[in-house]
Amino acid sequence: MASDSEEQRALQYEQTLMYGRYTQDLGSFAKDEAARLRLQQGHGEGAVPRLRRPSELLEYTQGRCAPCRVCALQCQRFLISKVGEDWVFLILLGLVMALVSWAMDFAIATCLQAQKWMYGGLDTNVLLQYLAWVTYPTVLITFSAGFTQILAPQAVGSGIPEMKTILRGIVLKEYLTFKTFVAKVIGLTCALGSGMPLGKEGPFVHIASMCAALLSRFLSLFGGMYENEARNIEMLAAACAVGVGCCFAAPIGGVLFSIEVTSTFFAVRNYWRGFFAATFSAFIFRVLAVWNKDEETITALFKTRFRLDFPFDLQELPAFAVIGIASGFGGALFVYLNRKIVQFMRRQKTINRFLMKKRLLFPALVTLLISTLTFPPGFGQFMAGQLTQKDTLVTLFDNQTWAKQGLSDEFEYLGILEAWHHPHSNVFITLVIFILMKFWMSALATTIPVPCGAFMPVFVIGAAFGRLVGETMAAWFPDGIHADNNIYRIVPGGYAVVGAAALSGAVTHTVSTAVIVFELTGQISHILPVMIAVILANAVAQSLQPSLYDSIIRIKKLPYLPELGWGHHEKYNVRVEDIMVRDIHYVTLNCKYRDLQHILHGTKMKSLPLVESAESMILLGSIERAQVGALLSQQLSPQRRLQALRQKALAEEGHQLSDTSIRFQISTDTSSGALARTAPRKPLKPALKRVPSSMVESPLGGTTDHSGIALKSLFCANTAAEPTEAQGTAYRKAKHVRISITEEMDLGDRMTPAEILEWEEQQLDQMVDFSSAKIDPAPFQLVEHTSLHKTHTIFSLLGLDHAYVTSIGRLVGMVSLKELRKAIEGSLTTKGVKVRPPLASFRDSTASAGEPDTTALRQLWDRHQHHPMPREAGPRGNDEDDTPKGQ
Amino acid sequence: MASDSEEQRALQYEQTLMYGRYTQDLGSFAKDEAARLRLQQGHGEGAVPRLRRPSELLEYTQGRCAPCRVCALQCQRFLISKVGEDWVFLILLGLVMALVSWAMDFAIATCLQAQKWMYGGLDTNVLLQYLAWVTYPTVLITFSAGFTQILAPQAVGSGIPEMKTILRGIVLKEYLTFKTFVAKVIGLTCALGSGMPLGKEGPFVHIASMCAALLSRFLSLFGGMYENEARNIEMLAAACAVGVGCCFAAPIGGVLFSIEVTSTFFAVRNYWRGFFAATFSAFIFRVLAVWNKDEETITALFKTRFRLDFPFDLQELPAFAVIGIASGFGGALFVYLNRKIVQFMRRQKTINRFLMKKRLLFPALVTLLISTLTFPPGFGQFMAGQLTQKDTLVTLFDNQTWAKQGLSDEFEYLGILEAWHHPHSNVFITLVIFILMKFWMSALATTIPVPCGAFMPVFVIGAAFGRLVGETMAAWFPDGIHADNNIYRIVPGGYAVVGAAALSGAVTHTVSTAVIVFELTGQISHILPVMIAVILANAVAQSLQPSLYDSIIRIKKLPYLPELGWGHHEKYNVRVEDIMVRDIHYVTLNCKYRDLQHILHGTKMKSLPLVESAESMILLGSIERAQVGALLSQQLSPQRRLQALRQKALAEEGHQLSDTSIRFQISTDTSSGALARTAPRKPLKPALKRVPSSMVESPLGGTTDHSGIALKSLFCANTAAEPTEAQGTAYRKAKHVRISITEEMDLGDRMTPAEILEWEEQQLDQMVDFSSAKIDPAPFQLVEHTSLHKTHTIFSLLGLDHAYVTSIGRLVGMVSLKELRKAIEGSLTTKGVKVRPPLASFRDSTASAGEPDTTALRQLWDRHQHHPMPREAGPRGNDEDDTPKGQ
Repeated sequence: MASDSEEQRALQYEQTLMYGRYTQDLGSFAKDEAARLRLQQGHGEGAVPRLRRPSELLEYTQGRCAPCRVCALQCQRFLISKVGEDWVFLILLGLVMALVSWAMDFAIATCLQAQKWMYGGLDTNVLLQYLAWVTYPTVLITFSAGFTQILAPQAVGSGIPEMKTILRGIVLKEYLTFKTFVAKVIGLTCALGSGMPLGKEGPFVHIASMCAALLSRFLSLFGGMYENEARNIEMLAAACAVGVGCCFAAPIGGVLFSIEVTSTFFAVRNYWRGFFAATFSAFIFRVLAVWNKDEETITALFKTRFRLDFPFDLQELPAFAVIGIASGFGGALFVYLNRKIVQFMRRQKTINRFLMKKRLLFPALVTLLISTLTFPPGFGQFMAGQLTQKDTLVTLFDNQTWAKQGLSDEFEYLGILEAWHHPHSNVFITLVIFILMKFWMSALATTIPVPCGAFMPVFVIGAAFGRLVGETMAAWFPDGIHADNNIYRIVPGGYAVVGAAALSGAVTHTVSTAVIVFELTGQISHILPVMIAVILANAVAQSLQPSLYDSIIRIKKLPYLPELGWGHHEKYNVRVEDIMVRDIHYVTLNCKYRDLQHILHGTKMKSLPLVESAESMILLGSIERAQVGALLSQQLSPQRRLQALRQKALAEEGHQLSDTSIRFQISTDTSSGALARTAPRKPLKPALKRVPSSMVESPLGGTTDHSGIALKSLFCANTAAEPTEAQGTAYRKAKHVRISITEEMDLGDRMTPAEILEWEEQQLDQMVDFSSAKIDPAPFQLVEHTSLHKTHTIFSLLGLDHAYVTSIGRLVGMVSLKELRKAIEGSLTTKGVKVRPPLASFRDSTASAGEPDTTALRQLWDRHQHHPMPREAGPRGNDEDDTPKGQ
Repeated sequence: MASDSEEQRALQYEQTLMYGRYTQDLGSFAKDEAARLRLQQGHGEGAVPRLRRPSELLEYTQGRCAPCRVCALQCQRFLISKVGEDWVFLILLGLVMALVSWAMDFAIATCLQAQKWMYGGLDTNVLLQYLAWVTYPTVLITFSAGFTQILAPQAVGSGIPEMKTILRGIVLKEYLTFKTFVAKVIGLTCALGSGMPLGKEGPFVHIASMCAALLSRFLSLFGGMYENEARNIEMLAAACAVGVGCCFAAPIGGVLFSIEVTSTFFAVRNYWRGFFAATFSAFIFRVLAVWNKDEETITALFKTRFRLDFPFDLQELPAFAVIGIASGFGGALFVYLNRKIVQFMRRQKTINRFLMKKRLLFPALVTLLISTLTFPPGFGQFMAGQLTQKDTLVTLFDNQTWAKQGLSDEFEYLGILEAWHHPHSNVFITLVIFILMKFWMSALATTIPVPCGAFMPVFVIGAAFGRLVGETMAAWFPDGIHADNNIYRIVPGGYAVVGAAALSGAVTHTVSTAVIVFELTGQISHILPVMIAVILANAVAQSLQPSLYDSIIRIKKLPYLPELGWGHHEKYNVRVEDIMVRDIHYVTLNCKYRDLQHILHGTKMKSLPLVESAESMILLGSIERAQVGALLSQQLSPQRRLQALRQKALAEEGHQLSDTSIRFQISTDTSSGALARTAPRKPLKPALKRVPSSMVESPLGGTTDHSGIALKSLFCANTAAEPTEAQGTAYRKAKHVRISITEEMDLGDRMTPAEILEWEEQQLDQMVDFSSAKIDPAPFQLVEHTSLHKTHTIFSLLGLDHAYVTSIGRLVGMVSLKELRKAIEGSLTTKGVKVRPPLASFRDSTASAGEPDTTALRQLWDRHQHHPMPREAGPRGNDEDDTPKGQ
């Protein structure tokens, strides 16, 4: 057992080394790891090897079954090695998501069927009918809200804004866990089953991402190394595509939509991943429908049957353009309305307090209101209230023309189309009421704290608007517009398709909704009208409002970098020097532990810049806050105190060390002066490698590593303030202190609190020993003249969190996401941010980064010429008042 | 006139300042510039203001026409300000390209028609027919090759590889000029008019890019500032999409294809540009066809009419998968064959020498061979030789089934379909012969030095292959596969669509060919088979060969960074330290002009690192080679020599300066010691700004700028070797040298060549004065431990050309595209590149860049502790043998 646990510890150690290794995905690493783990399984752990070893020897045994078994074994090995490959993961992801999507669709359809059945069965009593119509969704929504609230509040809402943030490299806690997955799937099924105007696209992106995260965690049990963060982020990007793809059976649109919605810069090498997984997922999703005998073969989800030979006339294009522009305004209005509702709910303190107490009241009230208004015998008869979202879409994409086109060809509303027909009103009024009511209903419903998206509701409203325009056109030109002999009637269904793409494109600020409608309807004949409408809608909406997802990001205050709008003039005149924080906390190479303590108290930055000295300010690297904390706690650890105590006792015994001995508290056999100063140059390297890992394992545990201590002793010896004078004596003293590590610590903690305090104060006055700290030697640097635009590009490209601003090696400031966001969002007058003068653009900036930073350079050069010993020069507060000193 | 020219000089000066300003596009800058230029026009130049000023005063004059005129003026102003906006540019680009595309299509159709007419008219004599059939394309191709060769050899070939390189930020000379545009358009028209198996997609990408470049240059005349490089690159990316979009009337496919083919990292914010321009272009392209009465309305280019209700059966999917896999192999073979042909032609020296003499012989021979084989009464009758590429595609996408399906429904080949029918053979044999012959013909034809692409030929071959499989399936299952009551026959046309997408996807390594076929055929019903086949084809082809464009890039040795293949294990174990060049040339801050000369002779790098000193090696920035050259030539310029001479004469007059006076050859009134040492701190800044611009204007012209000279004198005074001792005397001497600038240079060049040489030698021994040089203060830096993978990502993301490798501020090496390419392409054993040990991946690499670079840090720290005056320490050649000195 002892050797077993030791081996396991070795394993842990190696895994620690592995953690976070930078290898952007690509299966090969996973394969490698799979091989390694298999190797370890071979002779690492307890039970498995005993089972496997005989089978591994099979190749050398003689017997009848041996060839078969060898073959099976090789297959098994092959399979295990394949588990780590990307395509296996993508196929599994696609399969799982298709199953989830299909099962959810089935459950939702059942729920809606049940409501219809209940409503239909009670047609004797309108009151009972109303109660059934209203209670059913209220119960479902309330359950969904409560269930989500209890299990995982992170599952609320669309999930696309969160995924956008996560894909930028920011870790949001609990967003990709199994609990959230369950909450989202069940909550979404209930929410959609209620028949409220809610969508499944956004949540599906989130579900697919959680699925990918869980799957990679699951597969890592099998052997593949799925713990690589960069790989996981690439897989998440593919998962987003899968989410859209299997929701609409639209692989291409899914990939494009997910790229547009979640990425800023897209790596084309990941393109195939999304396509592969989304296609597979969409395929399985549709195959399930075929196997379930819902369909005869694989076709589009909302198949249209418009005529192919003459889909539309050129002269209809202005009408399509009108749809596009109106959708643009509508989309912006939707985003605005949605945000205002959320903000109103937050601001109204009395409402808010009441709702906070009874969290489920708000969803219930909203559901009650909406379902009351859609009650078919009531107001619902004027807005096709009895149709589910899917039926609505099917009817809106219908091939026929609803409006009267003369007495002869009176159109008969058959089947579900009947819902749009009202004996006392015409279809135009029904459509207008439908659009207006659904518009605010959708905006309101999507603020309910249940898992839900807004894409589908908006899509339906857009389709209705398109249909309205189409019917108007059809009524206006009963025989079509075409001048030639053939009569080509206008197809209002085509207008519905265009409207759906345009409005959803406007709300989400995407162009790929065009592709989604082609895939949804299975017809691409209206490509030009759709593209024109979508582009116009985007142009209008983007100049008025942020996208729905960006709006939610702002409401939720997620750490995301907003896009630079196009045409914002002032962005070019702002430079890093205008937005950077100048007053930053930094660690110097020659600082004391007390300084570290002050810095930790004074700032909350996650990483601190390390500079050579406060005078030179030459940036050497950055050190993480946790590392600084570890250094500090290590210095003040009880173990060290005990050792110091023991050492003191020893010193008192030997009468050799005076009160300065504190400086050399840990010394081993290797600390003889000569050795310490020459030997560590090269041989120390392997020893150094071990230091961080041992620290991770037991940052405060007193496991004393030989080489580590050797290093420390070296450093401690060197921290003497005046090296040339002090060192000689110091070494001479240190030479005599030899403490064997194997000696037991039997002194116990015999210090009083006061003594401890005193000891700690002494410790804090020591120079910091950075030898065991992890230092990032190349943090990202900008120069003062970098434009805001370039800074934004670099931050988005590299997914940076902060960057240091340097001027010829010297640290002069720092820019973090916060400053950048502030600058972009226009709050240019806040602290540390000033607006450039209008003529700033006329400054001499001769090259992108090739600006001759001559002043600073000259200073350095002057310093170089005038002061051969610049480090002895007095402290320099500012560049400007740098007068020569020391001559 | 004097004031005019002065104003113009001021203008030039400002424009010099503007040049290269980093502002990634976005119209606003252009707007700004337009406003500025308008302003300048208002009171800058000669003729215009006299015309405009009265009109500007119109607003204040009273008159009947005044309001109208004011209105017109405001409109004009508004229009001018709009010229700079992106969408205006994109619309113009789309319009121009649509016109070009349509005109070319028209010309090509006319050419092909002429050949058909000639061939048809001579049907009395087979020999004459043959001559006509063969001569016509040979003449056209030879003309195309000759014309291109003479006018612009850059127009040869596809252009996509070059665009890929240009979009990476590398400037290829003459690739985007008007000459190349003309050569490409005319050459391509002739080449395609010959009926050879050549495509227009690739060249169209190039044509669109040239169009964008020319358009931006043209619009910059109007006032918009179109000289911004980053903006132009974004516009070029949009232009690539336009090229594909207006070639196939496929806007979505065009955008996606251009992204896949040209980008590595794609900025999603540019997405709409491509969509907008490509949609507009495709729209106009198709509208032209409608106006020309070719079409009744806007439809797809190769419209198919497959049945919508049951496009394919699930059980047909394996056949589609087979098409995909076979296409993958076929695509790889095509790329291989194409490359081998090129390499064969290059290697065969005897052939080569002969062909080099008679450049037009090779195209003529190839055309002769191909057209002989396709001669319809000859071998062409077995391979539908009489059909043009377009007709071939139309027939292959035909809705009917060609193979006999029983006696009753014998299919009749009507119209152009007749070409596929041969009385003594069946359609299978014809198809097989067609595929085999066209395969090598296309691979051969695309090596002809004319503007041509390979996409369409490959597309046609793929369609034929798909048709073959489809016909086979149709013959195998005459009544379809579907088990239910309805009989759904197999649609071979659908297979042709799938095959076309799969093979073209395999050759180009793109997935978006799927979208292109949907847009080309106007039907999306086969989406799943197409996606499956394309993905399989890509998977196979990508694992066998590079894409056709990457292959051409390699053949042409363009400076492009190859993609990191997925699954290449060893990439993760290579780090920057393994591939970097350690022996680099650098400029030190305290070097002499002689050193600069040596460096310029010793290296060909375009920019040189500037380090503090050879001992510290702290990287301060990078300086361009041209700058170094300018510094050197300035130092050795005749003007300076003359001045020195004059000065010497003066000195001899005054008997005050000894032979050391060379050091203070240019001194003005401001060079009094005290002033020179204290004053320049701040007031120099504005003066410094002028230095680069005046240098650009006249780098060698003797226009002596007051402030510049003041600076130079300061620097020259300071370059005395031992500042503390020498300066006092130097200043005392310099104080007396006062030369008025306005004094005329009437001394003439009275030096002998020997004297000049001596003077130059003296000059070379002086310290370099960097004050007037442009220095990039923040060149991109990497650390030694950066992985190859990350390096590749950063190079592609930021479009880098080279990066310096630093270790805590110290320059230790350099990586350029060349080293990176070598490392990726696997030539890991060449100079300066060594392979990592296999276990290198197990090294401690705990974070992406967070590796504790403790050894180097410790050295610095030690240096800091041990040597308070590190700059006085002796020169240190290497990090490893860094023993403390100077104590």
